[in-house]
Amino acid sequence: MISYDGSGFSGYQRQPNARSVQGEMEQALAKIHKADSWRSTSSGRTDAGVHGILQPVHFDSPLSIPIERWPRALNALLPDDIIVRSCEIVSHDFHARYGAVAKEYLYKLTTGELDVFRRNYVYQLDAELNEDAMQRAANLLLGTHDFSSYSSPKTDVVDKVRTMYAIDVIRDGDEWTLRFVGSGFLYQMVRVLTGTLLEVGRGMREVEDVKMILEAQDRAAAGKTAPGHGLYLSQVFYDEKALTAHLKETRKK
Amino acid sequence: MISYDGSGFSGYQRQPNARSVQGEMEQALAKIHKADSWRSTSSGRTDAGVHGILQPVHFDSPLSIPIERWPRALNALLPDDIIVRSCEIVSHDFHARYGAVAKEYLYKLTTGELDVFRRNYVYQLDAELNEDAMQRAANLLLGTHDFSSYSSPKTDVVDKVRTMYAIDVIRDGDEWTLRFVGSGFLYQMVRVLTGTLLEVGRGMREVEDVKMILEAQDRAAAGKTAPGHGLYLSQVFYDEKALTAHLKETRKK
Repeated sequence: MISYDGSGFSGYQRQPNARSVQGEMEQALAKIHKADSWRSTSSGRTDAGVHGILQPVHFDSPLSIPIERWPRALNALLPDDIIVRSCEIVSHDFHARYGAVAKEYLYKLTTGELDVFRRNYVYQLDAELNEDAMQRAANLLLGTHDFSSYSSPKTDVVDKVRTMYAIDVIRDGDEWTLRFVGSGFLYQMVRVLTGTLLEVGRGMREVEDVKMILEAQDRAAAGKTAPGHGLYLSQVFYDEKALTAHLKETRKK
Repeated sequence: MISYDGSGFSGYQRQPNARSVQGEMEQALAKIHKADSWRSTSSGRTDAGVHGILQPVHFDSPLSIPIERWPRALNALLPDDIIVRSCEIVSHDFHARYGAVAKEYLYKLTTGELDVFRRNYVYQLDAELNEDAMQRAANLLLGTHDFSSYSSPKTDVVDKVRTMYAIDVIRDGDEWTLRFVGSGFLYQMVRVLTGTLLEVGRGMREVEDVKMILEAQDRAAAGKTAPGHGLYLSQVFYDEKALTAHLKETRKK
């Protein structure tokens, strides 16, 4: 399980000539294995600037380092914007990506004053938002739908049907968190959903529009893509029981 | 009045071949004045990694831009880790550095879990701290003393006598803030004071030691210099009345 500050990365995925979380992880893994390279598999990719709170990564290793010593060993080799939070031994058929049954993302924004220390961690929006309208719109997106309208067309993914278990609009004064729990998320989906809900919150769109946007199955129908730096992958679920318990625990009053 | 995130700077002061807050400020000022360079004067310098919440900077200008438009004009030319918070016209005899009667610094630390998103903004210390011992030691430092022991010897400053008006140890669970208000601060003084108070808090030194350290007038007598990234210049006072009001308002219960 890793945490990373996405500010200094071109995204999660390894790429030539750009700093990536995967690239740094695999460099550390190569060092510890005294190898030229070492493969790892994550629950998924994140875009440039997007952060990870608890992102699962799996890899094979022949080393006999006790499992509780792995985090410290890897952290010593990693740059300070990636932290291995914990390690556990998983069964051979575990797969960080294909085994995931659900994911949770948080989108953090403020309608308050511009704060230089949070510029990479919170999206700042100079607007008044209608919390109630946003939550009502969010509720219309729950359940199983084709999310073509709410994701970037730049993808090879064909099946765009996903299930949203929770979309909560949480407000604490000027600080807002949009929480999304779903079976899976298409490319830029959380950011397009967020951008569209923000347009509802600002009164630029009606609550019911989000339903019509779904039906259009056209990215052009939805709102702007919210910036990456407000987005956090917060949790990935590998079994239905843990997901159900989490949904119960976090249910909005 | 500017805010800046010190993480990306080699310090406040302009220097060749290194990114500095002053360098960026003066580049923006040069641009707005269509000049090759433009001088500015700050209340003081800060070290690499140290942050500014409200740091005064003064400059002369022949431009007729209305004062309320200056922040936006400068912010458009500044990198996003410096923000001009406000501008005001001051009298010709105002001097950001020599006119200051007192300054306030905050030192932020956590004894909680390592958080990748705050690694540049809060010092993380894996230790138990005795709040009461730290506050009692802090109280012994109040008043007027020679702070030679509590500052770096790397300085041309000869008079090392300063007056501390308030040193508060503020705790909120695992989150700690050390607040210093004084007539002035020597080079690395807040960081050496903090480092020493932390050693008291950890039981490595007795409360009364801080008094003996003062008397030694020797840097070697004091504790370690706390890292720069937990330190914030928060406020500078130019008149006694404002200082007195602030001290009254913020007095620890």
